[in-house]
Order: sequence, then C-alpha cells, then structure tokens
Amino acid sequence: MKQIKFFLLLFICYFPLAINAQTGYDLWLQYEEISDASLSQSYLNSLTGIKVMGNSPTLEASRNEISNAYDSFFNQELKNANSGDGLLILANIDQLPANMRSDVKSDIENINSEGYIIRSLEQNGNKVTLITAKTDIGVLYGSFRLIKEMQLHNDISNLAIIDSPKIQKRVLNHWDNLDRTVERGYAGFSIWDWHLLPELIKPEYVDYARANASIGINGTVLTNVNANSLILTEQYIEKVKALAEVFRPYGIQVYLTARFSAPLESGDLDTADPLNTEVKQWWKDKADEIYAEIPDFGGFLVKANSEGQPGPNNYDRTHVDGANMLAEAVAPHNGIVMWRAFVYSEDDPEDRAKQAYSEFVPFDGQFKDNVLVQVKNGPIDFQPREPFHPMFGTMPNTPLMMEFQITQEYLGFASHLVYLPKLFEETLEEDTYVNGENSTVAKVIDGSLSNNKLTGIAGVANIGSAKNWTGHPFGQSSWYGFGRLAWDPYMSSEEIAEEWLKRTFSNEEAFVDPVTDLMIKSREAVVKYMTPLGLHHIMDTGHHYGPGPWVSSLSRPEWNPVYYHKADEEGIGFDRTQSGSDALSQYADPIAEKYSSPKTTPEKYLLWFHHLPWDYEMDNGETLWHNLATTYQEGVEDVEEMVDTWNNMEEYVDKERFEKVAMLLQIQLKESKWWRDACLSYFQQFSGMEIPESVPQPEHDLEYYKSLEFPFAPGIRPSWE
Amino acid sequence: MKQIKFFLLLFICYFPLAINAQTGYDLWLQYEEISDASLSQSYLNSLTGIKVMGNSPTLEASRNEISNAYDSFFNQELKNANSGDGLLILANIDQLPANMRSDVKSDIENINSEGYIIRSLEQNGNKVTLITAKTDIGVLYGSFRLIKEMQLHNDISNLAIIDSPKIQKRVLNHWDNLDRTVERGYAGFSIWDWHLLPELIKPEYVDYARANASIGINGTVLTNVNANSLILTEQYIEKVKALAEVFRPYGIQVYLTARFSAPLESGDLDTADPLNTEVKQWWKDKADEIYAEIPDFGGFLVKANSEGQPGPNNYDRTHVDGANMLAEAVAPHNGIVMWRAFVYSEDDPEDRAKQAYSEFVPFDGQFKDNVLVQVKNGPIDFQPREPFHPMFGTMPNTPLMMEFQITQEYLGFASHLVYLPKLFEETLEEDTYVNGENSTVAKVIDGSLSNNKLTGIAGVANIGSAKNWTGHPFGQSSWYGFGRLAWDPYMSSEEIAEEWLKRTFSNEEAFVDPVTDLMIKSREAVVKYMTPLGLHHIMDTGHHYGPGPWVSSLSRPEWNPVYYHKADEEGIGFDRTQSGSDALSQYADPIAEKYSSPKTTPEKYLLWFHHLPWDYEMDNGETLWHNLATTYQEGVEDVEEMVDTWNNMEEYVDKERFEKVAMLLQIQLKESKWWRDACLSYFQQFSGMEIPESVPQPEHDLEYYKSLEFPFAPGIRPSWE
Repeated sequence: MKQIKFFLLLFICYFPLAINAQTGYDLWLQYEEISDASLSQSYLNSLTGIKVMGNSPTLEASRNEISNAYDSFFNQELKNANSGDGLLILANIDQLPANMRSDVKSDIENINSEGYIIRSLEQNGNKVTLITAKTDIGVLYGSFRLIKEMQLHNDISNLAIIDSPKIQKRVLNHWDNLDRTVERGYAGFSIWDWHLLPELIKPEYVDYARANASIGINGTVLTNVNANSLILTEQYIEKVKALAEVFRPYGIQVYLTARFSAPLESGDLDTADPLNTEVKQWWKDKADEIYAEIPDFGGFLVKANSEGQPGPNNYDRTHVDGANMLAEAVAPHNGIVMWRAFVYSEDDPEDRAKQAYSEFVPFDGQFKDNVLVQVKNGPIDFQPREPFHPMFGTMPNTPLMMEFQITQEYLGFASHLVYLPKLFEETLEEDTYVNGENSTVAKVIDGSLSNNKLTGIAGVANIGSAKNWTGHPFGQSSWYGFGRLAWDPYMSSEEIAEEWLKRTFSNEEAFVDPVTDLMIKSREAVVKYMTPLGLHHIMDTGHHYGPGPWVSSLSRPEWNPVYYHKADEEGIGFDRTQSGSDALSQYADPIAEKYSSPKTTPEKYLLWFHHLPWDYEMDNGETLWHNLATTYQEGVEDVEEMVDTWNNMEEYVDKERFEKVAMLLQIQLKESKWWRDACLSYFQQFSGMEIPESVPQPEHDLEYYKSLEFPFAPGIRPSWE
Repeated sequence: MKQIKFFLLLFICYFPLAINAQTGYDLWLQYEEISDASLSQSYLNSLTGIKVMGNSPTLEASRNEISNAYDSFFNQELKNANSGDGLLILANIDQLPANMRSDVKSDIENINSEGYIIRSLEQNGNKVTLITAKTDIGVLYGSFRLIKEMQLHNDISNLAIIDSPKIQKRVLNHWDNLDRTVERGYAGFSIWDWHLLPELIKPEYVDYARANASIGINGTVLTNVNANSLILTEQYIEKVKALAEVFRPYGIQVYLTARFSAPLESGDLDTADPLNTEVKQWWKDKADEIYAEIPDFGGFLVKANSEGQPGPNNYDRTHVDGANMLAEAVAPHNGIVMWRAFVYSEDDPEDRAKQAYSEFVPFDGQFKDNVLVQVKNGPIDFQPREPFHPMFGTMPNTPLMMEFQITQEYLGFASHLVYLPKLFEETLEEDTYVNGENSTVAKVIDGSLSNNKLTGIAGVANIGSAKNWTGHPFGQSSWYGFGRLAWDPYMSSEEIAEEWLKRTFSNEEAFVDPVTDLMIKSREAVVKYMTPLGLHHIMDTGHHYGPGPWVSSLSRPEWNPVYYHKADEEGIGFDRTQSGSDALSQYADPIAEKYSSPKTTPEKYLLWFHHLPWDYEMDNGETLWHNLATTYQEGVEDVEEMVDTWNNMEEYVDKERFEKVAMLLQIQLKESKWWRDACLSYFQQFSGMEIPESVPQPEHDLEYYKSLEFPFAPGIRPSWE
C-alpha cells in the first residue's frame, strides 16, 4: 500500500478496499457499496458535486465525512463544484447568499444552535441539496444525517429535514483510571494512552470523536469519578489539551473529574474546605490554568462524599457549598459543574434508596446557574431494572442531569447481549406525576417540565481498547442508542435498534426484523434471568459478576445482597411502603398510592416495594415462589431463542462478527443458567417449596455456587475493596 | 510543540474508519499485490495449482496460508490440481510417492524433525514445486518460507532450499498477569482474555499462532514468571486448553509458570518442600491433570527464590531439588522444566553480577535430563548493554537456555525505536573462550559446544493488546528477529532487518537501505543516550522509566542505581576486577586477563568492570568525563538522524504507520535529551568538570530532573514495590 500524499487527502480519501477481516472498528460508520443500481443512480443524480461555503476545521471535517462516505457508497469521487444540477452545498447560515437564506428562513427559526436543516431546493433552475445550520457543528451534524439517510437507503431527492438536539450537554463519562484500568470496564482497558500523550495522537482518538459527533454527543469526561488529583497537574493538563485539540473540530468538549481534596494532594494547602478563601482561590487558579490551555474546556464532574471520596461534608459543609465553590471557579469561562447525587452514608441506617433524595431535595434552588445535579436513573445503582429515581421532578429549580450506565456493570459485563436503549427509554417514559399526568422523566431531563435553562444527560461509557471499542459487537448499539436518546429523549428504542442494525450490519429485512426483535427482547431477558419481579443488587460483590444472593459479610450492610432481597422463611422482598422504609413516599401521589399495595404494584417492581410470603398469590393464580422460578426459566429460554435467532443470521453478517456474537451468546446462555440455578438453590432453602416441573433442577448444589470465586473478573478498581 | 501542531493539522482530514487504514495488525504477513508484471507472471507460471497430500489441521493450515498469500499477491485463486506444469505439492515425506521421495533422499538426511525441503523438480515432464518435511509442522514452516521468497521478490522457478532450526525449544515468555496487566508490558494489556475463555476464541489467538509459526517459534509461556498459582486450577486449565487447541495446528506448545508454593495455595498441603512425598505427589497429580486436557503441554517455567518468589531454599533445599522434583512430574509426558538462573539474594552482599554463577555452576550435571536452566543474556538484568553472562560455557553438563528480553523494560519502553536483534546478535557472537577460541555463546545455546541434547531459547514478549501487537511499529521487528535468531542463532541481524522491512513495508531499495541502517544504528544509539561506556541500571526505579542515577533509597542495595555506577568525586564505575568484586574471574582466561586492565578493556564495557577517575585518559586522548558527555550527545544526535531518515520515507509507507513512527521518534528524541541532561547534571556534581562545548547545557537543573514522578508509567506489576 503506497502512501497517499497529504495534499491529495484534502480532496479525496480513496484507498483500495482491504481484504482485512471486519473487526467492528468502523462502528455504525460503515459505508458498504450500494449495489441496488437504481438507488445508486438516484443518489448519484442528487449528488453530482460539493460546495463548502466558509472555512473551518469543522466544515472541512464535514466535507471529508461526506466525501469519504460517497467514495465508499459509489466507488467514485464527489468533486468540488460551484453550481449545477445535483450540487450539495454545506454552509453555515451566515455564509449563505440572501436568496438561499430566505428559502430556509422559517426553518432557521425552528432550530437551536446545534440543529441543522437539510433541504432540496431549486437554484437557477437546478436542483441542489443544502445542509445549513447556525453553527459549523450544526453543519457537521447535518452532514452525518445525510450520510445516514443513504445508509438507510432512504430517498434523498426531496429532502426537508430540520432537527435539533433537545438536551444541551450530551456527555460520555469514562470511568478510566490513569493507569489505564477502567472501573467497570469490560472492553479491554482505557483508550486514553496517557503515558504517550501529548506526543502520540492515536487514530482512535479521531475516530472516537467522529463516532460521537455522528450521533450528536458533544462532551466527554475523560477520567473516573473515583478521581485522582494528578489529572489536574501541569503534566496531565498538557495531555488533556492534546485530546481536546483532536476533539474540537467534532464539537466534543472535554471535562475532567475533580477530586475534592486536590488542593491538599496536588496543591500544598492543608484543607479543601470549600468556604476557605485559599481553597476557593486554588480552584479559581486551577480553572484559569486549564482554560488557558483549553479554552473550550467543559468543566468538572464531581463524586463527593460518596463511597470514600472526599467532599464538602468532611469540613461540615454541604453539597451546595462544594458545588457552588467549583461553579464559581469555572463560571468566568462558561464552564459547568456536574455534581453527582449518588451519595449514601456509611453511618445512616436509612434505606439506601432514600438517601440521595433526603440529602439533595432540600437544596433545591440553592445551586449556582452553572451546576447540574447528576442523578442515576434509579435510586440504587444501575440495576437490571429499577423504578425511576424519585429525585426526578422533585427539584424543579435545579437542573437534574440523567446518568445512565452504558457499561454493563450489573448486566453481564460485555459478554451479555443486552440492548440498553430499551432500558433507557423505559426510564425516560416513566411518568413522575409531579405536575400531574404526563410529567415524564424525559421532560425533567430536557428541562421542559420546569423550564430549566441548563440541561444534560450522561452515559457511563462502555468503550475501551478492544478492537471493536465495546467488546461485544452489540455493545456498540448501547453507545449508539445513548447518543440518539441524548439528542432526542422521546425516540423509540425500537427505531434506534433498526437504524443501528442497518448502519452496522445490513439493510436486509430478513436480518433487520428478527434481530431488532432479539435486541428489544434482550432487555427483559436479563431482568428475568438475573433479578426478576423487582429483585435487585443480588450480584456477587466487588466485581458484580454472577449471582451472590447469599453474600452477607461486607462491612456496610447496604453492600450486601441480603440487605436487598431480605429473603427468609417468611418471604422475600424489600418493604418500602409505610410499614417498611417508606421510600415509596418519595414518589408523587398516584404512584405512592398505587404501589402501596402489592396487588396494584406492577409485578416488575413487586419485590422492590414489598416483602411478600412465598405463597403470595400472583396475578396468574400461581404462588410467588412458582413465578419466581418460572421467570428465571423464561429468562434462560429467552437466551436460547436469541441463540437460535442469531444462528439463522449467518448469511447477513461477516464471519468475524457473526462468530464472535455466536460465541458470546453461548457465554450468556451458560451464565443465565448459572443465575437461575444459583438463585433458585439459594432461595429454595427459605421457601422450602419444590422447583416447578417446567424448570430444570439446578445442576449443582448451593455450596458449589457459593464456592465459586473470580478474583480476576474484569472491571474492578485495583484499590477497591 | 510545533511538531504536535503539525500532526494535528494533518488529523483534520484523517479518516481511518472507512478506508481500512493500515493498523499494522498483519505484522510481516502482508501480501501486497505484486505489481511487477514479469515477476508476477513468473510466479504464476511456477504455481498453477496446489496438491496437498495427507490430511491434518497443520497441512490444512499450510494450504490456507499459501492460498491466502496467493490471493493477495495475484488477486486470483490457487486451484486444487493433481498434476501439470506448475503444480505445488505439499506433503509430509511419508505421503510422497517413491519416485519423489528418492529425489529428495539426501536432503531428508540433512533436516531434523522440524526442518523442511523446498525443491523444484521434474515430474512426468512437468516442472513441479515440492514442499516436504519429516513432520506436518515442517511442511507448514516450508510453506511460510515459500511465501517469504515471494514477499522478497526472489526467483522461485528453481528452488533447492533445505533448512532446519538449530535450537529445539524456541519460546516466548509472556509476563502476563491473570488480571491482564503485563509486567514490563508496553503494548497495552495481555492478549489473553482469561475472563472470556474458554468460550470466546479471539481472531488474535489464531493470528498470534500464525505469526509465530511463520518465524518458527514453537512454544509460549502464557503467564508471568512472578506467578499466580490460580493458573494451575481446574477453572484455568480449561482456559489454557482452549488456547492450546488453537495453537496446536501451528506447532506452538503451551507452557505455564509454576509458582513453587502452589501446593499450599491451590492445594491444601502445608508445605511445598520439594523432597516431601506429598508435595511430589501433588505435582505429579497436577501434571497428570494438565496433560489429560493438553496432551502436548510443554511444561513449566519457574522463577524460584528470586525477588520474593518462593522456592526450594525456603525449605533448605537447592535449586536442583526444586527443578528435579518438577521435572519428574512432567517427564512421563515428555514435558520439560525451564528453571531460571535469575537469582540474587537479599542478604548476600556479593556483587549481584556474580551471584547466579556462584549459585548454579556448582550444580552442573545434577539436573534431570528434561531440565533447562534459563539464563539471561547478561549477568545483571536486560540492560541496554551487558557483557555476556559468565554462566554460558561454564556448565557443560547442563543445557543452558538463553533468555532475551524483547520487551523494552530498560530501553525506552514501546516508544523508543531500538532494533534488538542487533543486541541479541552481539551476545550470541561473543566468544566465551571456555573451550578455546570460537566457543561462542551461540554454540552454548545450540548445544554444539558441549553436545547438549536439549536446547532452548526464550524471549520475553513485547506483545500486547495494542492494535499492532507491539505498540511501536518497529517493535514487531524485535519479535520477528528473535524468532529468526531462535531458528538460526548465526544469522546476521542486518539480513533479518532487511527481510523484515521488505515483508512489513516495502521492497523499494530506497526505503530498505536507509531504514536497515537506521535500525542497526538504533541499537548503539540507545546505549549512548542511556548508559554509555559500560554504565548500567541507572534507570529510575520501579517502573524503570527515564533516568534515575541519583536513586539511593531502596531497601535492597542492588536495587539502587548508585550501587551500579558508584560515582563519587574520585570517579565512576563498578570495579569488578580483583581489586573489586572480582566478578571478572568468572570469565575464561583470555577475557579475564584482557579486561583486568582498563587499557585493554573494550570501551563499551569500561565502567562495567572498572572504577576510574573522571580525568582518566581515553583512547582518543580525551578525559573520561569528556567522552561520557560527548557520547550522551552522540546518542541524541543519532536519534536526530533517525528522525531525519524516517521523515524522508513518507512516500514508501502508509500514512498511519508513517505518522505513528514519526510521532514516537519525537518522544524518543525528547527522552534522549532528558537522559543526557539528567545524567550529566547528576554526574557533573562529582566530576566538577565543565560540560564540553559540543554538548548543550542541560535545559533544567538537577533538582528538576530529580523531582519528576511517573506513578502511572506502564508495565509496573500492581503489587510491585
């Protein structure tokens, strides 16, 4: 392969097609040659030349993305042109000539600063396609959209698309440590090769930015919330700057996690008290230092006074004091602070599910304008299923940022196919009822429910050094879907699955339909074989790999699975009604009332809110024990069905990805049986009831399952207990 | 900084995702279409069809390798055929018809069980090409050889090649931990994804085996010599078995490191005393268990009583007791034990360079037949330059196995271009004089000096999860060259460099010649800018990243750089003559005598053997201090020349690899200056002499260099102090 001269690359990016295997590195940006001749011809008629008005790295990136896709789709070059039928015009609205600007005048009023317009127009008797926006980034988003239309084989001859993101800060959170381990990372190790930065700029950094920009993600927190203050030193700021410069043309802002005690550790103060003048000055100076190098630095994400992290409480100050102190430091630079609400005290005997609400809701309205409070989707911790977090809707004067977990800490790691956008959609669609019916979580997050000015959504990344980024080929769909829902939290997860499949694998209906179905069903499958009927947090401890309902030995009660299922001879489940922890009272009334009785509680949340006897009669007339057992079995059968479905897809998928998914599904099947057998063995000793006939007897006895140890399961923080 | 901006500019139009950029994953197995029409036609004439006689996974692999290469070279398929002009025949000698067998009868007598023959023959009036061997693996090696001939654009119309490996056990040592960190690994993390084994077989496992087989490597130790006994449990043996099955068709045997205390840790004994009957039985049972799953398991590699590892000394037993006990366990299965001689006591005040010799030489002749004693190339620890280890040649009745380090623990990690086969060649060519002149180290290793029956060579791998396997694109050449020298320890490293460059990048003379030169010179460059004139082990401690000649605080004296350079106002260097540690007496007389005076000691070993005053007069008439300084400067200038050479190669190399090497060379240049400036600043305080005019003054003061800290430098064992 001969070197192509750089100057040529500015106009054309053509390389011979490699015969290399498909690693999955290309993600959803795969541009297979369009073999349907009439479709291909119609695209070629619509796109005969390209004209980019204006000049910026972002516009250049837009041009190159389109040229590159065009080359692959049609095996020919999209040439520069100034006019003619089929001209594609890329322009910031400021660059448009007056006549074209008036053509899109009303559309422009309907987009925000990141939105875009794609319009098929007449110009001097010629048909042209215009991609325009208020910012260059909008043009880039529009360019990716046009490419997507072709990937999906949609007609592009008569386009009238206007689209804007509904949430402002669409951010990935990387729980990446400076030694390149990734807490709860299952796709290898950190893609940030700190040791070789700033000099070595890996192609992955560029492709990471491209992939994110293609789905509208506009921010990335590079470091773990369990933070190391070294990242704030000059040595590391220089490295962060190098990444920020790669990401900038793609509209990705860089954020860092701020360890609250940094003034002690990387400074030389003897306190980190947020009301101390020197501490305030230290953070202001630090912010100034960072912004001098990275003018568009996004700001800080902070985990404070949570699971051993230092915070303002260490100095008898509040979360408001801490967040506002940092917010003041970054405010002059338009930075923001994302302050996590994931707190639970090691002394407080209150139900862990209640504590974040108790701690934060009283602070409503007290945070600075540039603070977002980042709240996990549910009140415990990224379980296979949780009800929505009761804070959503209850802090109308504080912008709440959603935190989803894309990496599958509690959902089978990167070896289980679980399509998470279905889970995300479930939360976003939940009705909080705080302002009456249709007060959905989505409306809290996009700010529409309470007219919040600042809005945000975060996803804990499942990205690593794996050749395909996410380990499981289908892990890419959760990254993709997070981005799509961050752009529009009202999208259907099924629609997202379909477009991801088409962009990533094949447009064939015989592939897309069954595999979309498989993806949608995968979300319920994992709940069934891990934590059915509202069970939660019964994973083995530390690594959270596999079942561990028997674990009861950890120092903090709320780290033990037995705390969550409370199984005994009387029954099973966590009573969160008035007779129990009363966590239910944190929800608005239609919910609080409905869920107060097991009979009117949705079965999916039954054991989340109620402790019930083993022979409690379920809707179908069977006992709770019976349904628990048969639901586990259903989960296993769902995975068996997934295996069958996938095995029929061989003709539509390249060999490498087909086989990888097939092998991983075997792991998922094995582990779903392990979950079923271990949990039923354990719970049976309390229920004293027979395992129903339709459910196989456990392969081993309970002692066997309890004896299994996995000291090197991935994703554990080295210093984690 | 200017350099960084330059690259960022290029990245604005950088699009590897969809254009199948060259990641380097294919290593030296790159089969570019042969564009020279007459060459291509001559190959096509010689190879019109393929016939594989016999049936085995290894023969099938041979056929596939040739077919794949053929497809790529000629963009057409090599069809199966039974006869005809241009037939290629692949056959184990047993499968050959009598007439063909007689054609190669004399050749057959000249190859060993892994050797091969490639012959152009007449058969029924047709010209055919025959690849044959005594084993199927030999046929595979011959197939890779034929492919290489075409990669190198050699004539294949009249072949008469016979070749056999000169060393039996050609083994990679992976210092890979079960958590996927790699001790002294700089190419990402371990390629062994233990968590997903045995189910998930990654394509990398197959390609790892292919690459190794292509250079004749026939064994791999999967785990770190600082061993974890968990690898010997049933849970892990199942995983090891899965890898062994992938590797088997490619002739790669799997070995494991045996933690000496395993009977206590993964068994339930209360001793690991090698003379204890239960301990012996435990290891026999363990071997039987492993061999039941992996019939061709290679055996064990052991680091015992070294740097905190347990061993027979813990029970007042000797290395012989320990090694023989394990040897007995694997002997019934034809397994071997590789017992490392890398020992030095924490109590023994004797020069560390002497201790392995002192400990092991008295045991000569006492080890079982299936024990190899594995000796590092030099007596300290994989330094940029060491004299050969004095054990070589002094244990005639014990097979000594060479241990080279391919990973660059002390040579700039994966960011410095250092072509190590040149270093390996230097050691192999050294004359030990133990049986008179021409008693080279190579002859010790291949067994010819003392007629050893068992022979072996090990390389500590530089392979990781990096997309190109080794991090630095040129790191591949050290892996490649290790394999070539393991096959034939008398090869020229220059010839190896040339063939590697042609197979990996380009056959263009204008590329191969200057870059071969660059590679050869890179070996001396690193010595000059790190440890000139016989200096050694003055790297910063723990991670061994960058200079640390000032370090003197570690608990064990021989872990401190000051122990090795002994610089003071009187002078610098380690007196290993009679007036000092007398380590020199461990060498045979011509050496011992010659090196006893600084005047007759080669300058490259001067400070290894002598402590000399700063104003000592060197061969060129300058002072030692002057030459020390100018040699550091020469090292920097060598790197500057490497940068220039590489920058002229742009037209011959694909963009991704070209830029990666260019960026890494900038790191190497920066760090070579850091080494020069830090070391000269430090030594100057003792010499009290001016830095010569031709050498730039250090950029910072000594305190600055001493203050630098790199807590997350890669390759440190998490539990390492």
